[in-house]
Amino acid sequence: MSGEYGRAFALMREQADEAWREYTRHAFVEGMKDGSLPRAAFLHYLRQDYVFLVHFSRAWALAVVKSETHAEMLAASRTVNGLISEEMQLHIGICEAAGISQDALFATAERAENLAYTRFVLEAGYSGDLLDLLAALAPCVMGYGEIGRRLSAEASSDVYADWIATYAGEEYQGACHAVGALMDSAFARRIGDDYEASPRWDRLCKTFRTATELEVNFWQMGLTP
Amino acid sequence: MSGEYGRAFALMREQADEAWREYTRHAFVEGMKDGSLPRAAFLHYLRQDYVFLVHFSRAWALAVVKSETHAEMLAASRTVNGLISEEMQLHIGICEAAGISQDALFATAERAENLAYTRFVLEAGYSGDLLDLLAALAPCVMGYGEIGRRLSAEASSDVYADWIATYAGEEYQGACHAVGALMDSAFARRIGDDYEASPRWDRLCKTFRTATELEVNFWQMGLTP
Amino acid sequence: MSGEYGRAFALMREQADEAWREYTRHAFVEGMKDGSLPRAAFLHYLRQDYVFLVHFSRAWALAVVKSETHAEMLAASRTVNGLISEEMQLHIGICEAAGISQDALFATAERAENLAYTRFVLEAGYSGDLLDLLAALAPCVMGYGEIGRRLSAEASSDVYADWIATYAGEEYQGACHAVGALMDSAFARRIGDDYEASPRWDRLCKTFRTATELEVNFWQMGLTP
Amino acid sequence: MSGEYGRAFALMREQADEAWREYTRHAFVEGMKDGSLPRAAFLHYLRQDYVFLVHFSRAWALAVVKSETHAEMLAASRTVNGLISEEMQLHIGICEAAGISQDALFATAERAENLAYTRFVLEAGYSGDLLDLLAALAPCVMGYGEIGRRLSAEASSDVYADWIATYAGEEYQGACHAVGALMDSAFARRIGDDYEASPRWDRLCKTFRTATELEVNFWQMGLTP
Repeated sequence: MSGEYGRAFALMREQADEAWREYTRHAFVEGMKDGSLPRAAFLHYLRQDYVFLVHFSRAWALAVVKSETHAEMLAASRTVNGLISEEMQLHIGICEAAGISQDALFATAERAENLAYTRFVLEAGYSGDLLDLLAALAPCVMGYGEIGRRLSAEASSDVYADWIATYAGEEYQGACHAVGALMDSAFARRIGDDYEASPRWDRLCKTFRTATELEVNFWQMGLTP
Repeated sequence: MSGEYGRAFALMREQADEAWREYTRHAFVEGMKDGSLPRAAFLHYLRQDYVFLVHFSRAWALAVVKSETHAEMLAASRTVNGLISEEMQLHIGICEAAGISQDALFATAERAENLAYTRFVLEAGYSGDLLDLLAALAPCVMGYGEIGRRLSAEASSDVYADWIATYAGEEYQGACHAVGALMDSAFARRIGDDYEASPRWDRLCKTFRTATELEVNFWQMGLTP
Repeated sequence: MSGEYGRAFALMREQADEAWREYTRHAFVEGMKDGSLPRAAFLHYLRQDYVFLVHFSRAWALAVVKSETHAEMLAASRTVNGLISEEMQLHIGICEAAGISQDALFATAERAENLAYTRFVLEAGYSGDLLDLLAALAPCVMGYGEIGRRLSAEASSDVYADWIATYAGEEYQGACHAVGALMDSAFARRIGDDYEASPRWDRLCKTFRTATELEVNFWQMGLTP
Repeated sequence: MSGEYGRAFALMREQADEAWREYTRHAFVEGMKDGSLPRAAFLHYLRQDYVFLVHFSRAWALAVVKSETHAEMLAASRTVNGLISEEMQLHIGICEAAGISQDALFATAERAENLAYTRFVLEAGYSGDLLDLLAALAPCVMGYGEIGRRLSAEASSDVYADWIATYAGEEYQGACHAVGALMDSAFARRIGDDYEASPRWDRLCKTFRTATELEVNFWQMGLTP
């Protein structure tokens, strides 16, 4: 089995089954697809997502610290740059266009659902090795890639076309492929090729599933500004 | 200002004002006071609290790692021992008496409200120094001390007398005083005696307040088995 | 293959071959065996070893943080206690008897050979998982057990009988067995039973060997007060 | 007092006095100045320095993780990129030109003096906050800047002109100024403007001085291939 974004991700996604479906087909997502998502919910989500990206970037920087090879360091540091220099700028831009100043954006009070997710990812990384961290990071990276691609094909409204285009776009999809390749080589290096035979597999899948469930809670928070 | 559990705690508690009140006077707490708390809610809470203590003990072990003096190491490692050897045993005992086997207890699925709290504390500790960690650890330790003492004086029912006696008891109160003393000396060592004048004060108070809010969510979770 | 102190240790010790021999049969050790080691060298070593134990205890506390099971937490926290409450007290006692006050002991300036070793162990633990940490911790724990036992059988002088008796004694040997058992179960849990087939094996052995080499440097430092 | 590379650095440098002088005027450095340094020593140093940069980049990535503001994250991540994408490439280039293949370079066995230094820096960062980490990172960054500038003015030989030009160059000097500015703002944010009055000052200066002493050992290692 080897999906679009690599084999380790494909296998973990399969294990996370219903949770993965709940996450990638959440009412919030479907609301972006057909344009029915209220603007206030979207902007509320975007501000929380900015705070999320601050900590998510820190978690990717931790992946550089936890790297064992030059290739791992390079792949992880490219992701940090993409997040800090590009994705966070995107949020700043959309928010400014919507009349939310950078100061207001930076001052956004972090919601509990948001905090739960990023602290879980960072702690998984601090307490474990690169695999534990990647298992916690993957659902966000690849889930958005999958959602972007599907919505790009299925959207019946262009209200959220910008958001969709970003995650369906070549650049973001390229990042997903790079992270998938990083995962596969990092897994091979530490547990061999037969991932599922590793005694660590269940725990890694659990970390992936928990992060997926925390994504569900994040969308849910998006619906309740 | 110097309360029962030391000066740093007293000042932070004051800053956390309403959140502190919501936490220490939560409906769950009042339900233990007058005995109206449903048993199912109590046992559900106790099982989650066991999972909580696993990670909370890890966080106190991190306080040993982050110590800069022999006295700090000793104080923190005594707390780890109290948690692992005593408090966790207490939960095992109460649960067994209630027909919940140790295996069932260990297999308790961690709720999101629970996970959010312990990962927040651990991450605060990993990313910061001992002060950041202590600011995140204090609300649980001292809040339970305060609740235990008050309920011991005000309880109108003996349904939850065991729980109350534990936290109102000399041993637990002694632990609270020890942690209070550790905080005061750790604060003096790193930011001097005028805590409030330190540029770090606001951030430390914010960490304390966030942990307090996560305690509120934890009680709330207790009410929804 | 399963030695005195467990299988994982026995296999790693075998891999570290010459380095292990250099460490456990170092001139410093042989000098304790026949009593020819100058007292000044011994006391100099003891003071450095006290500073070493401060950081080594912090590293064992990190093993509690990195534990995944209650049994791992218990085993690691018992070692922390043994180090902080007993082994460090022993050093304080011997030094006081030799006219080195506790203040003088605490003020010992850390030598580079000492610093190199403990920071290597702590960093291995922070950056990796429990296995990486245990591979770095084992040479000190078990090496001293092995040296103590051998010297207890072979010593031709009683000048260093106290030191030898401590490490040959039941209590210390029991600690070595406990750490060996912790290693074996932690390895089984994370890489299965066929340690040598794990892709991580070489790197873990390298960590063990590096720690062993840093032990050689530590004895060497002992000879040059 | 405010030197070329900011005030915090200037004050710490002053405190490290003789150690700083030993480091920046080491025989290895003077040998590059007058061209008397044997080529074998230089290449040996360069290979060790490559291994050093791997871990030093990880330590700068840790600075991103430990950042509390967007500005801190940006400054630290720019340094990571400079190290991974540029400075490490430079070493690869010089070594290749000298007949040392990339494979040989990557396979360089880490010397104890090298390991001691990077693990000290990483551990200071993991166990402390951003200030502890910056105090450990600064001597390398700014010391090379200072050495480059002085040698650029004083060199009596062009044998090592490339190396000197790199560290005396605008790009590297710009990086030193950026790190100096990051230090000053990070210090102000955490301990205020009167650095020397902070209870943390002595410990931070000690970290800086220890890193400086480890730089002296590193040059010394360079002289003994």
